Order: sequence, then structure tokens, then C-alpha cells
Amino acid sequence: MTLIDMNCDMGEGFGVYTLGDDAEMLRTVTSANIACGFHAGDPLVMHRTLTDAKANGVQAGAHPGFLDLWGFGRRPIQGERPADIEKIVLYQVGALMALASDAGHAIRHVKTHGALGNIAAEDRDLAEAVARAIRTIDRNLIFVVMPGQETERAGERFGLPLVREIYADRAYADNGNLVSRRLAGAVIHDAEVASERVIRMVEDRAITCLSGTRLPTRIDSVCVHGDTPGAVAMAQRLRERLAAAGITLAPMSQVIAA
Amino acid sequence: MTLIDMNCDMGEGFGVYTLGDDAEMLRTVTSANIACGFHAGDPLVMHRTLTDAKANGVQAGAHPGFLDLWGFGRRPIQGERPADIEKIVLYQVGALMALASDAGHAIRHVKTHGALGNIAAEDRDLAEAVARAIRTIDRNLIFVVMPGQETERAGERFGLPLVREIYADRAYADNGNLVSRRLAGAVIHDAEVASERVIRMVEDRAITCLSGTRLPTRIDSVCVHGDTPGAVAMAQRLRERLAAAGITLAPMSQVIAA
Amino acid sequence: MTLIDMNCDMGEGFGVYTLGDDAEMLRTVTSANIACGFHAGDPLVMHRTLTDAKANGVQAGAHPGFLDLWGFGRRPIQGERPADIEKIVLYQVGALMALASDAGHAIRHVKTHGALGNIAAEDRDLAEAVARAIRTIDRNLIFVVMPGQETERAGERFGLPLVREIYADRAYADNGNLVSRRLAGAVIHDAEVASERVIRMVEDRAITCLSGTRLPTRIDSVCVHGDTPGAVAMAQRLRERLAAAGITLAPMSQVIAA
Amino acid sequence: MTLIDMNCDMGEGFGVYTLGDDAEMLRTVTSANIACGFHAGDPLVMHRTLTDAKANGVQAGAHPGFLDLWGFGRRPIQGERPADIEKIVLYQVGALMALASDAGHAIRHVKTHGALGNIAAEDRDLAEAVARAIRTIDRNLIFVVMPGQETERAGERFGLPLVREIYADRAYADNGNLVSRRLAGAVIHDAEVASERVIRMVEDRAITCLSGTRLPTRIDSVCVHGDTPGAVAMAQRLRERLAAAGITLAPMSQVIAA
Repeated sequence: MTLIDMNCDMGEGFGVYTLGDDAEMLRTVTSANIACGFHAGDPLVMHRTLTDAKANGVQAGAHPGFLDLWGFGRRPIQGERPADIEKIVLYQVGALMALASDAGHAIRHVKTHGALGNIAAEDRDLAEAVARAIRTIDRNLIFVVMPGQETERAGERFGLPLVREIYADRAYADNGNLVSRRLAGAVIHDAEVASERVIRMVEDRAITCLSGTRLPTRIDSVCVHGDTPGAVAMAQRLRERLAAAGITLAPMSQVIAA
Repeated sequence: MTLIDMNCDMGEGFGVYTLGDDAEMLRTVTSANIACGFHAGDPLVMHRTLTDAKANGVQAGAHPGFLDLWGFGRRPIQGERPADIEKIVLYQVGALMALASDAGHAIRHVKTHGALGNIAAEDRDLAEAVARAIRTIDRNLIFVVMPGQETERAGERFGLPLVREIYADRAYADNGNLVSRRLAGAVIHDAEVASERVIRMVEDRAITCLSGTRLPTRIDSVCVHGDTPGAVAMAQRLRERLAAAGITLAPMSQVIAA
Repeated sequence: MTLIDMNCDMGEGFGVYTLGDDAEMLRTVTSANIACGFHAGDPLVMHRTLTDAKANGVQAGAHPGFLDLWGFGRRPIQGERPADIEKIVLYQVGALMALASDAGHAIRHVKTHGALGNIAAEDRDLAEAVARAIRTIDRNLIFVVMPGQETERAGERFGLPLVREIYADRAYADNGNLVSRRLAGAVIHDAEVASERVIRMVEDRAITCLSGTRLPTRIDSVCVHGDTPGAVAMAQRLRERLAAAGITLAPMSQVIAA
Repeated sequence: MTLIDMNCDMGEGFGVYTLGDDAEMLRTVTSANIACGFHAGDPLVMHRTLTDAKANGVQAGAHPGFLDLWGFGRRPIQGERPADIEKIVLYQVGALMALASDAGHAIRHVKTHGALGNIAAEDRDLAEAVARAIRTIDRNLIFVVMPGQETERAGERFGLPLVREIYADRAYADNGNLVSRRLAGAVIHDAEVASERVIRMVEDRAITCLSGTRLPTRIDSVCVHGDTPGAVAMAQRLRERLAAAGITLAPMSQVIAA
């Protein structure tokens, strides 16, 4: 039986603001990456998202980012030292874990958000800073990484459980990175095309690049977006198509334990 | 042997900003209340303060406050619901604990900061919200309270270890509250006067109010300020005078365990 | 001919976050109160809202609030000094005016937001602080006030052009204040009921209180909400009903100049 | 008579935090660059700084930066679009001007802070965005620039009055940029060395680079730092040495009008 996780960023509101349709996505995915108050989220949103994830049987993880609410953590902030990155990850994950103990739900994974994730994927020292922070908190926490990037290698060196994810709606360059959103074909808007692509990569155990190049890798999870138009419909269609292809959805901790 | 703790707020910088002379105060006091990023502090300041506290043998605690950097957590923000207060305490204490596990130092106590502390001292529901957050994280965490206030009663009901503190430089009203800073005689600026007052209250096991009224209470800790002119000198003089009076300084966890 | 303005809060997004349907409301109302970056809004949102207001022929005004994005400026922050309130109003209105000069649209009015507005309505010193800030920037700026409150009196004393507004969907207490949202009947959800009430008050030149009491007053503008469910539909229906009743909509500066 | 201005960043506190000794620097320099609330400063600090600058006869200017209080505006934030930079400059300068009209002091110049300044100096589009914002507000506002950089060229194209400044305590690369602080010799700590260097460059009408290369340029102002150890002493010594060399200090608007 082929198992796969579907993960989605959630809890990205702040105060009166909301983003995405978390209620609907929680009925569709198996793991939730919860914003921790730096690029989005606040203690109330975080607690509510944890409570709702638990009620829906969705695994909860931390989604730390840069302290940049205005830029939603998407703006690269240059010059951060690895030791500082480590501390902002510790802070955010620790905050979420305390809220999780109140909500009665466990934090099982960590995935970096936005520009923090992009920078860590390409910089060995920053990737290790993230891995070190995770290991300090709990060496059983899963580190969600993109195959072939520095984060995967750092996670391996630090002995963390790893979940290797692919993106349902993004094209890949030959080095395994995402193609920049500014380039044509970078984002896949058609749910059928995205679904077929995901199924092929999962069955093939390889990332298919835009050029046609195959990058063999273990694939444990598919990331779907929650904040784009049509996001819910695409996630639901992907879920149906995966089921029809005989691929079973399960939270990422079960996928890597299988 | 009479034991007493001296506690002081620390780690109140933010980014390039600093406040108070933490290095000097860490050589003088026995417990540090560390700001957690809401009214002051950031992940880097928090980590550095934890590291320095450990190096000086000073016990570390969390000092959560309102999310109000501009107002330094001193402005009363009305209308906060207890359930929300509980979550902002969980968030801040959890964040500090994760950093503490990296710094190799333990978090042993929680004390609310500024307006959050003032509001909780007078409102049963808010006091219970704070106590509940502490108990959820770790029922062995010490709750630092002012004798006779709602926080003391909430801590007792929730079965938390309590440390009852007095203020070295503040006058008391007959109900055990601090006299408003706006009134004459509210703040004691003379280190000798403050020291004599503290020694009398500790030996007498009672708070001496401005009116002369005695409020019997257990006294475990003396709070000294770190951010006022002459703060370091007053703390050092108090330390000397306590020693001369045969009162031994010890971290608050040792005081209540004795 | 009876003229009346319809005003609505707008530009209440921040970064990736949006709030309300500004595009639709700009086709319906005649004046826009634009958030200035403290409780909501940012330089980009402000500029876009100014540009869109101009394109729709909607008058633009500043909507300064407390520096409290998390609480959306709705939480009363106690202890603010009038001199400080004056400066936060100056800052926000000045920022919007600079953006307006780039967008080619004029700022014609100022209305305080949320808790800042509530506090100013009941406190003479704070009301004067707001009026003083407005007069310093431009003594021709309109001050939007609630009839019978301290803000109206402060505006009169400072010689500012005043626009007296009523709320379409809120019930009034006998002193001319809004009935607390927590009380039954405080908010009117039915567009027909709200419309009839507005028309009656405008024609009657008096506020009708929940008790039936009549408070005679000049009425220049009706405030409609943009961020509640059904907000657009209620505003559109009110506009139709006003037209049917022979009441002509016009920006507030025209209403008071008529 | 040779005239020169001395400018210094000021008003860099926030809430309870202070930075630098503004009172002393205001007795020493002739122009103050006032933080506008994004990287530092708040409405109260801004107003106080304006009032104090006026009392000391020091010219006031705006010092807009990135919205990054934690990083003090020193962290390069990548990917900002010129149109967005223009709006954050408009916002900040407009806010300061409104406060200045209350303080009774005029805003005469604009100088970009930290990373915003560094990025604009090297990117034509961003430099033009800053120049455009300044021109929109008031085409008589002085744009403070570093000779030979994109900001100087943008200011010339937009027809703004320009003040060309040199740094008293920083070494120059051959292209006219500052040598990175990470390199040896980048920062000059000795007041005599710094003073001699400034006097030579002013008299020579050229920047002397670390390599010995001469870059001829008009020099209108010398920037001194206010937030480094020994800042006040260096500024005072520079002032004395300039006077002894027959170079007269004057606010930058007088220097370029002479």
C-alpha cells in the first residue's frame, strides 16, 4: 500500500484578519503547518487551529518564519546569522508547543515558512541552524524538507526524522528547486494536471522537472496551498485522484513509520 | 536561618535597544524574570539573558506581558478575555522554555509583567487564567504573587508552588496593594530606608503599610527594580544589609523548599 | 433638496490581509474613512484606497486609531495622555496626506477609529487633543463627530467644520451614545429596518433612541459598516431607499457646504 | 568662507527605549535626521526631537527607513518594488511633517536610513523612487546623498536640491562607496584622525579613498554617528577642529544656498 501525506499551511490569520479556508482544508489534508506568530498567526489563532486540527484528526506541526508580518515572511531578509535563526525557530516552536499542550494536541513536525525556508534550503549553515533548533526541542520532531536541498542534508546529519515533500502546484528546475513564480509555467492552476503530476511522481518515486529530467527521491508528503483562489477545490480533487490511484492518505508521521 | 530571594526583571532589551544593567544586576540578585518578546525582549535577548543568568547562578523565570512593545506592557488594555490571557501566557512561557533548553538553564518560575500583573492581581478570572496557563505547562513551575491579591488565591486553588514577594522600593496601601506612583511617598529612593523596611518586613513576617498597619504574610522574595536610576546601587546595598542582618539570599526555589 | 453623505471605513487591510469589500463599497458610499497604519492599513493599502476612492468620486478622509494592529484598534488602552493622543493623530493624518498628494486625491475629513473614537467621545481633554491635531494640520479639515458627544463640543470650540453622523445599524441610548453591542437590540441586521430608521432620523432632524426619546440634531452623514456579513447589501439597499425617499447622496464636504 | 554642515541621526528611541545622547549631539551638530517610526522613532519621540532641534537651532530632516524595528532598519530586505519604496517614504516623511507643523519647526531635508539607503545608493529604480517621493511632497526638500551614487544621479534628474555628504568615521572604496564594516580600517575610531581626514576632504573638494585615490566632488555636509561609544566626543572634537581650520558650520540649507 502506498501512503502519502497532504500538508497545508494553516492558522495564517492575525487578530481580525483571516487567510484561507482552514475549516475546509482541515477536512481535506492530513497535516497542518501552523504559523507561530512571526510572519502570521497569534496565540488565539494558533490555539484555535490546534483545536480544530485535533477535532479533524489532522497532524499538527510548527511553521516558523521571519518576524515580518507586513511581508508575510516572504521577503528575504539578508544577513541573518545562523545562531540567530536558530533562536527564532526555538522561540516559535516552543510557543506553539505550549499552546498545543493546552489544546491537547501534539506537535509532530516543523516546516520553515516562506523566505526562511528558501534561504535555509540553499545555505548549509542556516539549514543546520534550523535542524539544531528542532533537535534541541525534541529529536523526535519531524523536519519537513525538499529533496536534494541543504535542509534535507542538515536533517540527515542531525539525525532527525525527515519528511520529503513535493509541491502539487509548482514546477521544478533541474536542481530540484522550485521554478521562480515569475517564469511561465512555474505555477500549475489546473487541478487535473496537478493531480496527474503528483500521482506520477509518487508512483515513480522521483521528481519530474520542467525539462523532463527525473530526480529520484523518497516522497512522503504533498504540499497543497490554502491561500490561493481555487485552493480548496484543487486539494479536494487531488485527494480524490490519489484515492482513485490507490494511494492512501495518512499523516506524515504514519507515512514515515510505515 | 532566614532565607530570602531577590528577584529582578531582566532581558528587557529589543533589537538594538537595551534597558537596565543586566550584567551588574545578575551579580546581585538570585532570580531573574525574563521578558518574553511581547512587552520587551526578543529571541536573541532572551537567549543571552538565560545564558548569563546560568553563568551567574541566577534562577530564571518567565515574565510574560501584554503585546505592547510601545507601551512596554504598562498600559492597561481593557476587555481582554481570560481565555485569551491564558493563551498569551502559554505562548510566551513556551517560547522562553524552548530557548532555555538550548541555553542549558531551567525555567523555574513565572511572574506577570506590568499591566498584565496589575489586572490579574485584582480580577479573579484573569488571575485564574494565568494560573491555569502555568499549570498546563508544568505544575511545578513557581507562580510569583503579591500576598493578599487574587493571584495568590488563584495560585493556591490551582495547587501551584507560590512565592510571595514584596517590593523593596514601594509603599503599601492597607489592602496590600502598592500605593499609586502618583501619590507622595509611593516610591522609596533611599537605599538605607528601603533596606531597613525590607529587613523589618522579613523579620516580622508581615507587610508594613504606609499607614503603619501590619499585614501578616509569608515573604519569600524581594523584588528590586533594574531600570531606574540608582537601581544597581540600591540592589547592592540591600544585599549587603540583608547579609548584615543575618538574612541569607537564595534563589526562590530554594527559599520555598527550605 | 435634502442632502446626506454615506461614509464607510476602508483600507483596513495590512500586507497580505484584506478586510471588507472596498471595491463594492466604493461604488455605494460617498465618503471613505481610510485607516492610517496604526490599527490597520499600510502605505500600499492606503495609496491604493486613495486611488480607488478618487476613481469612484468618493471623498477621502483619515481614520486614525490606536497603535494596536492585533486588537484592530478596538481595545481601550487606558492612561493615554491627551498630548500623546494629539501626536498619534498628527502622525497618522500627516502620513495619509503625503500619500494622497501622490495619489492626486484630497484628504477632506478626519474620523477617529474604534476605541480611540469611543474614548474621545467621552473625555473632553482627549476630544480636544484630536481637534487640536486636526486644526494644526489644516483648519479646513472636517471633523466627523457623533452629535451630543465631547468630540462635537471640542470641534465647535476649535472652530472646525463639523460633520454630524448617525449609524445606520446601531441603536442609540438616551444620552446619544450607541447602545453596547452586548445588549439585545443594539445592532440592526435588517436592511429595511435600518433604512427606515435612517430616513426617519434624517427627515426628522433628530436621533431616535431605543427608548423612543428624540434627540434633535443636524445630521450630515450616515455611517455604514463595510466589514460585517451583508454589509454591502445593506449599504446598497440604504442607498436605494434614500433615493426613493428623495434624499440625495453627496460627499460630506458638499453636504455641509450646501 | 568655507561652510559645512554636520548631520547626525536622532530621535532613534522607541517607547521606553532610548538610543544615543541626542541632547548633547543637538549642541554639536547643525542638522538632525529624525527617525520616522519605521526602523525607530515613534510620534512622541519624533515630536520631542523636533522641539529640541528647534530649541538648539538645529535643522530638521526626515530619516525614513524600512519597517523593521527589530533590525533597526539595517537588514537588507530584498524584493521591494520601487513603487512600494516610494510609498513608505511618502508615509514617513508626511508623518514627520505633520508633527513638525505642531512643533513649529520646518522639515528641510530627507536622508534614507540604513539598508534602505544602501539599496537605493546602488539601484537606479529605487533611488528614483525615493527622489520621486521627496519631489511629490515638496520639490524644495533637500535630498541628502552620497557623491557618485545612484541617489545623487536620481536627485539630479528629479531636480531636487542636493546635499552631498561624507562620513567622518568611515573609509571609502575607490567607487565612492563605504568600505564594509567587516574589513580592517573601515571604521575610524580616533577623533583626530577622523577630523584631519574630514578637513582634508573639505579643503580638497574630493573624497580620499582608502587606496589614496581622489574622487573630486562637492561636499556640503559631514555625517557623524550618535549611537557609537565616544560619538559625542568625536563630534565635539570634529567641530573644534573644523573651527580651527577656518571651516564654518551651518545648517545644510545654508551651505547649499551660499
